[in-house]
Amino acid sequence: MGAVGESVTLAVDMMSGDQTLATRLKACRHFAATNENVTLLLVGDEATLREGLRRRADDWQVIHAPDVVAMDEHPAKALRHKSDSSLHKALELVRDGQAQACISAGNTGALLAVSRHILGTVSPAIKRPAFIAPLPAEGGGTWMLDLGANLEVSAEQLLQFAQMGSVVATKADEPPPRIGLLNVGSESMKGSKIVQNAAKLLEQSGLNYVGFVEGHDIFTGKVDVVVCDGITGNVALKSAEGAGALFLKKLSEALDKGMFTKIALLAARRALKAAAQEIDPRQFNGASFVGLNGVVIKSHGAADSLAFEVALGYAAKEARAGVPEAIRQLMGES
Amino acid sequence: MGAVGESVTLAVDMMSGDQTLATRLKACRHFAATNENVTLLLVGDEATLREGLRRRADDWQVIHAPDVVAMDEHPAKALRHKSDSSLHKALELVRDGQAQACISAGNTGALLAVSRHILGTVSPAIKRPAFIAPLPAEGGGTWMLDLGANLEVSAEQLLQFAQMGSVVATKADEPPPRIGLLNVGSESMKGSKIVQNAAKLLEQSGLNYVGFVEGHDIFTGKVDVVVCDGITGNVALKSAEGAGALFLKKLSEALDKGMFTKIALLAARRALKAAAQEIDPRQFNGASFVGLNGVVIKSHGAADSLAFEVALGYAAKEARAGVPEAIRQLMGES
Repeated sequence: MGAVGESVTLAVDMMSGDQTLATRLKACRHFAATNENVTLLLVGDEATLREGLRRRADDWQVIHAPDVVAMDEHPAKALRHKSDSSLHKALELVRDGQAQACISAGNTGALLAVSRHILGTVSPAIKRPAFIAPLPAEGGGTWMLDLGANLEVSAEQLLQFAQMGSVVATKADEPPPRIGLLNVGSESMKGSKIVQNAAKLLEQSGLNYVGFVEGHDIFTGKVDVVVCDGITGNVALKSAEGAGALFLKKLSEALDKGMFTKIALLAARRALKAAAQEIDPRQFNGASFVGLNGVVIKSHGAADSLAFEVALGYAAKEARAGVPEAIRQLMGES
Repeated sequence: MGAVGESVTLAVDMMSGDQTLATRLKACRHFAATNENVTLLLVGDEATLREGLRRRADDWQVIHAPDVVAMDEHPAKALRHKSDSSLHKALELVRDGQAQACISAGNTGALLAVSRHILGTVSPAIKRPAFIAPLPAEGGGTWMLDLGANLEVSAEQLLQFAQMGSVVATKADEPPPRIGLLNVGSESMKGSKIVQNAAKLLEQSGLNYVGFVEGHDIFTGKVDVVVCDGITGNVALKSAEGAGALFLKKLSEALDKGMFTKIALLAARRALKAAAQEIDPRQFNGASFVGLNGVVIKSHGAADSLAFEVALGYAAKEARAGVPEAIRQLMGES
């Protein structure tokens, strides 16, 4: 918290998602109070938002959007018939330069369709945008893409995912990010034809490509970016979350069952909490839809206020880093 | 340990894998000492094995196989030029009815190719065998297939995986196993065409199909069998292992860093160990290559003696349950 950087404006879709409006408002309030040089534009039904903001309503910029895209609404329908929705309006603010990033916890399919329609890709060379997010790993975190935007991909798309991932993972004054291609084994003969062909493209790409990686390598810090198709990425991410949750539960049960003194139990629970926080999925909430002509961050639909605030911070960071422009430049060169 | 059941003979490939022979021998000794009605046939170079067994060599049945398939050997080469290998001989013992199951920690690709060649599928209806294994979950465990034998699958193959998984997961006097199809979302419109078509086939299959499941559902006990293609299954399994290992490490670090009394630290470490044991990948070592005309268990190549012993127990259980015959019957009916 408390990051300071150049001035940035974020358009926040306040109406979409499974959480309550109060949850999103709480996140916005705390984020605004602890981050300098950030302006939040709250997008949604004005009366509802003012009511939620109550006495302090005048302190906030509210952009009126009377309609909402439902969580189970078909993306094509959302695209065609919901042009007054908070999702549309928030994305239009980015398109029109009034905001540098959009955050939504809404319907993923609708976000994909509407953001592609309103913003377009940042370069004509880009075949399809992809979802990227950081995952916890030894030594910090690993970026992974695609996390579910593209169910079927070509070798050329995997190369583009690697290029976009490399831009996102680049840190000033550090060597270029190490890129790994997710596969069922690390031996060069392993994998599908698509992955085999993608490996050949990556070897000639000029990126810091280190070869095939396996599922467990996402968490070991072996690479900075893991590249895969959207099905594999989505399942890997959710499997890891599921395994972590099961472990946490078993550990808590073992503590309950064990014959420990109160002080021992307290110590163990404190360590457990500290460790769980470091890899808490809430601390990693938010996937960026890279390849678009603007920063679009998808928050988990059921994110609590802490997690939603993480997504807001992620949006500010990507906007300040100028990720879309950097991708456009890289694509123009390649 | 100590399971008693009908008499069963297991052919153990003693030469393949990344562990030492001593590790495999230790597992065999302990398994034989704690399990009744089980005969182990130790397959490998006779002189090497007798040397390893030393004084008690006469107590064991050794089947001589002078050759070994290397871990990095190409499957096609192993198939054609290694007919005197421990892998070939162990599988031939199953084919010839001298053993009811084969266990190997060797080269997965070679195991797939050689076992299909020597044993064949259990029914002409079966398109491709698949790797199935139990994963830790709330309330016990979840079976998952395919874990990497089939990188590209059709909707019909996914249906067959579900049928084979249902046979493996069936328990006497219990309702039929609940089958879930792994997807990027649980809504019916989600997923690739193959998964969409597989869902339609599963709805009409007569199996206890409950619908789409997501990565985290592998660990919640929501279903008994998770069905997917081999890439997704392999990555999900390894991601879960990686996430678990990271959590364990972070937790251990948190305990080291914390200011705890010795007694509190001891108690916390004991609880951590108890929880970790319940979901220890070693306790779940061994994937069964189902759909073959015989029981074939693949152990992790780097399995320690505990893990290798788990794989031996798994082989005995599947052989006693008559899994291949039950699959043949189900396929004949469908």
